[in-house]
Amino acid sequence: MSETLALLQDETNAALKRSFESLASNLQYTDSYLLQAVSYSLLNGGKRMRPLLLRLTGKMLSADTQDLNVAALALECIHAYSLVHDDLPAMDDDALRRGKPTCHIQFNEATAILAGDALQSMAFECLSSMPMSEYGESKRAKLVAILSRAAGIRGMCQGQSLDLLATDKAISLEQLSELHRLKTGALIESAVSMASCLSPQASEETDEHLRKYARAIGLAFQIQDDILDVTSDTLTLGKPQGSDVENNKSTFVTHLGLQGAKEALKTQYQEALQALTQLPYNTEDLRCFTDYMVARIH
Amino acid sequence: MSETLALLQDETNAALKRSFESLASNLQYTDSYLLQAVSYSLLNGGKRMRPLLLRLTGKMLSADTQDLNVAALALECIHAYSLVHDDLPAMDDDALRRGKPTCHIQFNEATAILAGDALQSMAFECLSSMPMSEYGESKRAKLVAILSRAAGIRGMCQGQSLDLLATDKAISLEQLSELHRLKTGALIESAVSMASCLSPQASEETDEHLRKYARAIGLAFQIQDDILDVTSDTLTLGKPQGSDVENNKSTFVTHLGLQGAKEALKTQYQEALQALTQLPYNTEDLRCFTDYMVARIH
Repeated sequence: MSETLALLQDETNAALKRSFESLASNLQYTDSYLLQAVSYSLLNGGKRMRPLLLRLTGKMLSADTQDLNVAALALECIHAYSLVHDDLPAMDDDALRRGKPTCHIQFNEATAILAGDALQSMAFECLSSMPMSEYGESKRAKLVAILSRAAGIRGMCQGQSLDLLATDKAISLEQLSELHRLKTGALIESAVSMASCLSPQASEETDEHLRKYARAIGLAFQIQDDILDVTSDTLTLGKPQGSDVENNKSTFVTHLGLQGAKEALKTQYQEALQALTQLPYNTEDLRCFTDYMVARIH
Repeated sequence: MSETLALLQDETNAALKRSFESLASNLQYTDSYLLQAVSYSLLNGGKRMRPLLLRLTGKMLSADTQDLNVAALALECIHAYSLVHDDLPAMDDDALRRGKPTCHIQFNEATAILAGDALQSMAFECLSSMPMSEYGESKRAKLVAILSRAAGIRGMCQGQSLDLLATDKAISLEQLSELHRLKTGALIESAVSMASCLSPQASEETDEHLRKYARAIGLAFQIQDDILDVTSDTLTLGKPQGSDVENNKSTFVTHLGLQGAKEALKTQYQEALQALTQLPYNTEDLRCFTDYMVARIH
């Protein structure tokens, strides 16, 4: 990972922590068991891929830093809630996440359900309530529209539902790609959309190229996950190795084989870089981010 | 229930159905299993107390009807999601809701979790995306702020968490009242706040009196629930009778006895009517609504 990127990732983590704490400090129940579960699930040292992408894109487009931090926290709240709920016994039933006990193991199942629910509400509270620039103020409703659409039945939730229906059942490569476009792609796409929404100078064309870029890295990210699931060990993954195979899930590896999956990953990687070349901006940071995504170590 | 109110309740149900269908018609996945679960949970013939209160209040304050319908759908989406998640095995573990199988019984547990999650996203998609008047447009972010705060860790989710922590454990009457102020009161309060937010003529003072009114009927509503839990049968309740007692929950009846609970209900009822007398508007519909709330038959 490049120094610039490592620095920005630290900054992103610090900004997320600051924003979350400023939000939590206004809570009447700072000692609440639920807040502990929310905090545990949000501030767990994730890679912050989505906030990082949002901030890198926004920086490139000269968006206001505070506005980007607000959007980044909202986005990470949605991502964190989705992980908490995906890990539940009724869903993927995972006990380990990033090498730590999942929320329902550390607390309890009911609290994990509520922590996920509260994290989703918090995302929209951020976008509607946290201090923003005058320009950001005028974009609050648009940001809520982008994020709620990406999170809900047009995006992540629908993808997760398709994923559950596909367990123990072979699905086509097209269905697999569509499933991941919704389950993980929609939220990654919302990162660049929120960033361009917060930039007074970003054109619709720029937004379109950025979303094309996001779709490509989103798919690359998932293919990478499928590859790592069979090539890495549990310690490196921070979750049980081979869990996809165990759950009889169709993956890019089961469809294309390990070599084929690696080629598909390369194709998406090149499509992503191609989309960046269409942008009238200095895309070096985003190119570094792309390399990092495709070569990421869990 | 007065004819006016019965008419408005039918209108509210019809408006909710229309708004939901216009939202669902834009979905790519109209045949989705998840959408079926969402639709089942939202359009299940509930009493629509909250949307009804929102529309009655907004009508009194001359807010735009379409704006009120958008806010009413968003509010009911949050309420519906909370019921779906409250009924889950890890929470209250209820198999029956309004005389029908709960979402996780009718579909499955994972789908019920996702349906609740998608309903919450949908609430904020409504407020940010559905057509509104020019005035409503300018209030979208404020509406999101009101609803997200009422739904999340400052409101409903925190109340639900306190409720779970209070199971099998005696809590004081103050803790019980606070629990319900958050668990059910916050959302009822948001109904009148969203209505006054959508009225160009409502003053801060009006908003304050309305919220005082909402807090009183919210508490009355809960005391009523506790009374009905011991006095009604399962068929009338549409849920298992005596379930509170079964779950060893502190209720207003266990604290005050049946007679004491009925007196407390009367006190809240009078406080609600008192708050209405402070309003410089024709509050007849809200008075009817209050009577209906306190004399409601499930």
